Amino acid sequence: MTVGVCYFPEHWPRQRWERDIEQMAEAGLEYVRMAEFSWGRIEPERGQFDFEWLDEAIELIGDHGMEVILCTPTATPPKWLVDERPEILQEDPDGTVREFGSRRHYCFNSPAYREETERIVTRMAERYADNPHVAGWQTDNEYGCHETVRCYCADCSNAFSEWLADRHGDVDALNEAWGTTFWSQQYPDFEAVEPPGPTPAEHHPSRLLAYYRFASDSVVEYNRLQTEILREINDDWLVTHNFMGHFSTLDAYDVAGDLDLVSWDSYPTGFVQDRREAEATVEELRAGDPDQVGLNHDIYRGALEQPFWVMEQQPGDVNWPPHAPQPADGAMRLWAHHAVAHGGDAVLYFRWRRCRQGQEQYHAGLRKQDGSPDRGYADASTAAEELFDLGPVDAPVALLHSYENLWATNIQPHAPEFDYWTHAGTYYRALRRRGVQVDVVPPERDLDGYAAVVAPTLYLLDDALATRLEAYVEDGGQLLIGARSGEKDPYNKLPDALQPGPLAGLVGATVAQHESLPEQVPTRVGYGGDEYEYRTWAEWLDADDATVQGRHRSGPADGQAAVVDAERGRGRVTYCGVWPGRELADALVGDLLERAGVTTHAPLPDGVRIAERDGHVWVTNFTDAPVSVDVPGGAAWIVGHERVGAYDVGVLEGTLGDVTVTRENSEP
Amino acid sequence: MTVGVCYFPEHWPRQRWERDIEQMAEAGLEYVRMAEFSWGRIEPERGQFDFEWLDEAIELIGDHGMEVILCTPTATPPKWLVDERPEILQEDPDGTVREFGSRRHYCFNSPAYREETERIVTRMAERYADNPHVAGWQTDNEYGCHETVRCYCADCSNAFSEWLADRHGDVDALNEAWGTTFWSQQYPDFEAVEPPGPTPAEHHPSRLLAYYRFASDSVVEYNRLQTEILREINDDWLVTHNFMGHFSTLDAYDVAGDLDLVSWDSYPTGFVQDRREAEATVEELRAGDPDQVGLNHDIYRGALEQPFWVMEQQPGDVNWPPHAPQPADGAMRLWAHHAVAHGGDAVLYFRWRRCRQGQEQYHAGLRKQDGSPDRGYADASTAAEELFDLGPVDAPVALLHSYENLWATNIQPHAPEFDYWTHAGTYYRALRRRGVQVDVVPPERDLDGYAAVVAPTLYLLDDALATRLEAYVEDGGQLLIGARSGEKDPYNKLPDALQPGPLAGLVGATVAQHESLPEQVPTRVGYGGDEYEYRTWAEWLDADDATVQGRHRSGPADGQAAVVDAERGRGRVTYCGVWPGRELADALVGDLLERAGVTTHAPLPDGVRIAERDGHVWVTNFTDAPVSVDVPGGAAWIVGHERVGAYDVGVLEGTLGDVTVTRENSEP
Amino acid sequence: MTVGVCYFPEHWPRQRWERDIEQMAEAGLEYVRMAEFSWGRIEPERGQFDFEWLDEAIELIGDHGMEVILCTPTATPPKWLVDERPEILQEDPDGTVREFGSRRHYCFNSPAYREETERIVTRMAERYADNPHVAGWQTDNEYGCHETVRCYCADCSNAFSEWLADRHGDVDALNEAWGTTFWSQQYPDFEAVEPPGPTPAEHHPSRLLAYYRFASDSVVEYNRLQTEILREINDDWLVTHNFMGHFSTLDAYDVAGDLDLVSWDSYPTGFVQDRREAEATVEELRAGDPDQVGLNHDIYRGALEQPFWVMEQQPGDVNWPPHAPQPADGAMRLWAHHAVAHGGDAVLYFRWRRCRQGQEQYHAGLRKQDGSPDRGYADASTAAEELFDLGPVDAPVALLHSYENLWATNIQPHAPEFDYWTHAGTYYRALRRRGVQVDVVPPERDLDGYAAVVAPTLYLLDDALATRLEAYVEDGGQLLIGARSGEKDPYNKLPDALQPGPLAGLVGATVAQHESLPEQVPTRVGYGGDEYEYRTWAEWLDADDATVQGRHRSGPADGQAAVVDAERGRGRVTYCGVWPGRELADALVGDLLERAGVTTHAPLPDGVRIAERDGHVWVTNFTDAPVSVDVPGGAAWIVGHERVGAYDVGVLEGTLGDVTVTRENSEP
Repeated sequence: MTVGVCYFPEHWPRQRWERDIEQMAEAGLEYVRMAEFSWGRIEPERGQFDFEWLDEAIELIGDHGMEVILCTPTATPPKWLVDERPEILQEDPDGTVREFGSRRHYCFNSPAYREETERIVTRMAERYADNPHVAGWQTDNEYGCHETVRCYCADCSNAFSEWLADRHGDVDALNEAWGTTFWSQQYPDFEAVEPPGPTPAEHHPSRLLAYYRFASDSVVEYNRLQTEILREINDDWLVTHNFMGHFSTLDAYDVAGDLDLVSWDSYPTGFVQDRREAEATVEELRAGDPDQVGLNHDIYRGALEQPFWVMEQQPGDVNWPPHAPQPADGAMRLWAHHAVAHGGDAVLYFRWRRCRQGQEQYHAGLRKQDGSPDRGYADASTAAEELFDLGPVDAPVALLHSYENLWATNIQPHAPEFDYWTHAGTYYRALRRRGVQVDVVPPERDLDGYAAVVAPTLYLLDDALATRLEAYVEDGGQLLIGARSGEKDPYNKLPDALQPGPLAGLVGATVAQHESLPEQVPTRVGYGGDEYEYRTWAEWLDADDATVQGRHRSGPADGQAAVVDAERGRGRVTYCGVWPGRELADALVGDLLERAGVTTHAPLPDGVRIAERDGHVWVTNFTDAPVSVDVPGGAAWIVGHERVGAYDVGVLEGTLGDVTVTRENSEP
Repeated sequence: MTVGVCYFPEHWPRQRWERDIEQMAEAGLEYVRMAEFSWGRIEPERGQFDFEWLDEAIELIGDHGMEVILCTPTATPPKWLVDERPEILQEDPDGTVREFGSRRHYCFNSPAYREETERIVTRMAERYADNPHVAGWQTDNEYGCHETVRCYCADCSNAFSEWLADRHGDVDALNEAWGTTFWSQQYPDFEAVEPPGPTPAEHHPSRLLAYYRFASDSVVEYNRLQTEILREINDDWLVTHNFMGHFSTLDAYDVAGDLDLVSWDSYPTGFVQDRREAEATVEELRAGDPDQVGLNHDIYRGALEQPFWVMEQQPGDVNWPPHAPQPADGAMRLWAHHAVAHGGDAVLYFRWRRCRQGQEQYHAGLRKQDGSPDRGYADASTAAEELFDLGPVDAPVALLHSYENLWATNIQPHAPEFDYWTHAGTYYRALRRRGVQVDVVPPERDLDGYAAVVAPTLYLLDDALATRLEAYVEDGGQLLIGARSGEKDPYNKLPDALQPGPLAGLVGATVAQHESLPEQVPTRVGYGGDEYEYRTWAEWLDADDATVQGRHRSGPADGQAAVVDAERGRGRVTYCGVWPGRELADALVGDLLERAGVTTHAPLPDGVRIAERDGHVWVTNFTDAPVSVDVPGGAAWIVGHERVGAYDVGVLEGTLGDVTVTRENSEP
Repeated sequence: MTVGVCYFPEHWPRQRWERDIEQMAEAGLEYVRMAEFSWGRIEPERGQFDFEWLDEAIELIGDHGMEVILCTPTATPPKWLVDERPEILQEDPDGTVREFGSRRHYCFNSPAYREETERIVTRMAERYADNPHVAGWQTDNEYGCHETVRCYCADCSNAFSEWLADRHGDVDALNEAWGTTFWSQQYPDFEAVEPPGPTPAEHHPSRLLAYYRFASDSVVEYNRLQTEILREINDDWLVTHNFMGHFSTLDAYDVAGDLDLVSWDSYPTGFVQDRREAEATVEELRAGDPDQVGLNHDIYRGALEQPFWVMEQQPGDVNWPPHAPQPADGAMRLWAHHAVAHGGDAVLYFRWRRCRQGQEQYHAGLRKQDGSPDRGYADASTAAEELFDLGPVDAPVALLHSYENLWATNIQPHAPEFDYWTHAGTYYRALRRRGVQVDVVPPERDLDGYAAVVAPTLYLLDDALATRLEAYVEDGGQLLIGARSGEKDPYNKLPDALQPGPLAGLVGATVAQHESLPEQVPTRVGYGGDEYEYRTWAEWLDADDATVQGRHRSGPADGQAAVVDAERGRGRVTYCGVWPGRELADALVGDLLERAGVTTHAPLPDGVRIAERDGHVWVTNFTDAPVSVDVPGGAAWIVGHERVGAYDVGVLEGTLGDVTVTRENSEP
């Protein structure tokens, strides 16, 4: 387990570099990422290359015993290139060009930009082909950041038509698959299908979904262009890309298929402010929400089912969220441990030093702009010292996540509050409250090894997936399926059969009605002898081959079935037709884990999490109050001790079942 | 009184049609509307027509004893037509083209589209000229939906210049009428007057009003193009158009002049969510607001002063409002009765069957997508059975409504909350709380037969209208005029005289000051010995030939006159210079009806309404609590009985004066 | 001290003029402003001039003993000119043209418009070169109103490149000054630097600041074009421009350098609604906020350090804020006195008569549209009678205000609530609560005469300014510096040194951390033995050569220094690293004034203000409750008496130290 940092030697005078790099080494850092926005520095005008500065920086890093992750600099084509070939720029749906002056101002489908990409990546990779200090490459930087996955330019229009022709062969097949005999939306040929521009009313949901798939595939294809060049030049390099948190327009699983390693950029106190429904608490403003961060760790670990890296770890206050509170003392260390507990193998802080120029002057580094240590520096050093080598995480539970379901429910949320991530997060949080490790994987993944599987929503569904889930249950799997599953076919049309469509046989019930409800409507269900709140979404179930475990107790739905379950072969499947409130999610997940025989902790306090990895248990405390860790028979503490203070961490040898965590002074 | 349905045979396999149509007949349906978005199916490429599918569907419907309303398919020009003649597309004010991919993507003023319209309407009408099962036609579909009345393309610019030249003759006359000697806005010629595009500051109110009038007139002209073709081909056809609820950009009275029948599309639980100021209550989310729906019934009945149709009646949950709660049990039947009580002669549910493809998959039908009955099916069947033939509604009161006043107050609301519909609705609701039938008619309508007239606002006013209102009162009419009346001349300029301008003689007072007030300001007036709240708008009146009936009791207005009245000949006129709160509106309307000798009920509970039509009384209960109906001497019940349950209806023989309705368990 | 009015004879029939002008004279008015939007009337088509109407109006005004301020009519180029030379129109960042139909639809950098401007200004000025009744000129009208300072057209792009070339000489110097080696933003030449258009992510802060400076400079240059023509034709004319309240995109100090007189347009009850963070109270809706208005008076007085004019004074209800409450009785008189107390020499009401046409029909005048007196007429007459001649204001305190700091903090507020005006207003209000006159001046101004100086924020800072502030303190000055000072260099980059950069020596401390905090986070500091709230912004200070006067008492900052001070030579400097709440601002400012030996009043009640000018004291009461004025030894009252009623004013001979004002019935 290692710690590293992101460094921009091009921002500082050359005479400063040696001291910077010495200080990195003193802190115990092992990796330095560089060059992701350096095209304008490397090639100040067409064909005039200047690599000497980068050669020297790499050499110095190597001299200090560290390794370099280089980046292809394609996220920022320089001005001379934009002026020469303006067709590389992206366009908004209404044709407005996204101009030069920030970053990510290129179209993934631009033939001109692919040509330029090939040229610069080849040149750069060849330069460092034999450099012993370069461990690997990050392609580009945060694909899709600033809403750039979906572009609406003429190149995209052509590429979309071709992509559709490849998938459907014949335009009649497309018309049939989408169902265009609605509002006279039949297409005469593939060329007639354009990116979805401004229209008087909403778009056809099948067209939108196809465009979202196409746009994501365009990034996959663009990334593959880079990975193939890199691999061809030096097949030993580790090739990665740095994904983002709760990112919604790009299928990370698809991109990951072309990578050796998945990494992502983690900014806990930013995420609680700008990508979550609930307002951040004061504690969350100081250290983030462990489950929000954890869900992303588990997605990116799940992508290749192997350890991930945090390529950018928040180092202190940052510039882009609405507010920039100072993190709690120790938070920067806590985050490194939390990442490792979730299966991270390396944590690189972004950035080494606060930048004096440009858009990120309000983003802290491990060092201040004058070079003196900032608050994160000691945390990073401590983490580097404390972390040790570990095997991978072994998760007993899988949570099924699919970008296509995210896109399709976004296209027709049917309620302003129906947010895919928040709904899935309800189930994820219930699992994590029990201390259980969770692989977040796509529905197509082999589920054999999992004692239990939670599918918050399987919105788009075909027979093949239904058959695989049936087999999982028949073979003894414990499956919990959430609302809106089986609503649509893969082209975003309703199937002939009532919801859950191909899953109806497995579930033993169909959805008689669904409704979406605003906050002012009372929403209650009974389950297991208790009454619970739910929110936003309700289905009324007709159980024909299942046991009713919960019934509605409010509104016109009163008395209708809401939760059913059924034994199938050696397993059991539960279908929950509402978006459960927190307590109902706890009850459903608790019952699932119990019948699956998964070891759990009693429900943990908010902000306190435990996690097991390779014979060690992490207790991470994201709150302002200390917790006590009780280990009958005594604990072997690697980090910390039985009292884990505010924003502190403890690591001990053992397994989840050995440990009991309680908040001090809490009621018994 | 009949019930029908909207059907899309083109969405389903031909082998299903016979069963669908049998089930319609079994439910007692009598009309089937079809083909309003079928252009792409009828003419898949230019000049290649396929009418056989429609022929067959019509034949089957006729075979089952039902009649067909066909629609011209012009709301959705197909893609091949758009690609051939892209100039038919609408444009936003900033020039953004509204592209293909939804519906209503054509400009009413496009010569190209008028040519295509003529071609397709003629072809289709000729096809069915002698078909005995086709009872009539709906032109297009929901003119103006998705903000499409106002277009800003080059064709519109030319047409606007011509429209202005026709009205003003000479550009100097336009400059004088609008008052362009303000901010140097003089126009050198008619060509120089363009649709109102993006400008640094707000537009000239006279130019805006002219553009809104022109845009509405363009739809009237376009619709007339269709009605003339239809009438020429078969003069026996019933020609209608389906208007929308609370629709604000098109003058429905003007369009109605070219129709035989006015119909509209009623979605009660959608309307309470997306076109009303107040947040919907839980009961309203389940059944709608009877006064919001009723105001529309009364507008469309008033348009031709004859019974209307509901061409689309909500059948269950729908896709377009923010939330999609399931309607209460029985609500779909309640709505049919409520429409009939307000003078509806037919109610067609939209749609027969939930659609599997395209934008409306989340819109229920009477049958589910698998063909099984949905919640509305039984309600529709029951309504079909219960309804019986009736003469027209005879309303003792008129409420004056004018689209030009709506546009002009929207242009200069002078307070964010000054909404024309909400203000007019305050008076309408007070009338309906007394069980009184109300014709909602334009101010130009002959008022002779009405015992009382309420004019919530007569914002734009000329001498001719003032003279007619004077005559109405002199002849014994009882008139109640609301705030902001007589503020402007018909070109949206202030008149020379102080407000209410030409009405000052009739009213006997002028407006000394007006003010608009945010919620935090106390707003009180005294009236008839009590003190009341008002909201948003206040006028301070100078009464020179009127009696002060109410005075301000707050703010700088304290002590100023707020409500005045005056006898004139055999009648009386009241002017209310504030936007009354609910209680003040009740008091003003109660006093008006009493002096007009109109039979009323005591103020009804919210959500409970009674209405008299042709010797029968309807009691419609839009609430969750039952009500009791007391008829001294006994009642002859046609539907239901003296206890009308939640979301239920009772119909008895008699008149308004015979009936007393009370909420059970309410305080005496 | 005189009163005047704005008049539009072109809006009224000629036969009315004489009576209007007589009534002005009867009211005691002395100045009449005219013609600011008259281009279309003066030149109805190219080269056809009609000045006779204006000649006649001026003659009539002169005949009645009043003087005329004429305006150049350039704010509204007529339609024929726009049609002939459409390139004069402004463009939005996305290229949308701001079209004809309102006002201010021209680009300051358009060579075509500068040519037309020269032509019309010359022609008009020559016409009245020898007219004895024309006292002077207002250039254009409210430069920049409706967000028109910043334009994005091709002319602006060229002008921006030239402006940059003039400032930097060499593009490498620009790249160095801005720091473009960030996200590959290096520019190959000056032509490549365009106005900031739509980009995927935020713009480079140095580029934005340069564009804002350039845009402001463009207005300065455009205004100079006009003032030079006017001065050349008649050097005796008074040349002014009417600025706006809380106006943020134009550097008024720069424009003022080319004027003889600074005037501005004051709309107190509009400003509390549309340019302030806090919701308006009921009293403020009736009379405005004296400190909000006062800050503007003091900026425009400070601009040339001489008396200013109110060129447009709100006359009653106005059309443009969200709501239009009627001002309190007497408010129009109160505002005139308040302006004079702050150093105003003339107050012209806008407008004479409510306009019947165009965009401002809902804007009151001193007369109603029918010519009868409106509420403001008596107030204006009374004010004209009461006001008398006075010498200038002598302020003991300066508050430093800089448009560049405003722009730069707007570019990177780092918290949605960080508003420059609100932050500066916190300190300004604390000063005014003590009855102290304040010059609001740019940081470059000579500070020698001031006993105390408050700098709410000195965000952009260079060594020269730091040296001048050091000298001020060394020489005995008392200086209070607020948060975010010295964060940036003049190009909007971080300096090498930690904040406050070049001020660190004077202050004796550096900023260890800063953070921005949303409302839900507790924010407390101790100061002088008490605990206070702060808001939005916190700095943690390292004091190496200063005394810690206040420490944080909340969050991770707990215990860190928040307020420090230090003696330097004969003076003292305080640095406050938080945005103080009202009470902390009172404490800081009170301590500052005390040590500076400035005479103050005890903290005044909200809405009650006193001000001293030339041996007289004004007591202005913007509240609904009367106040008592106690003057030991008796007062010589010029206006009013010792009881100043609601929205009333008292003027007496004396100085601030003589007077004690208390709210009646307030607790002792």
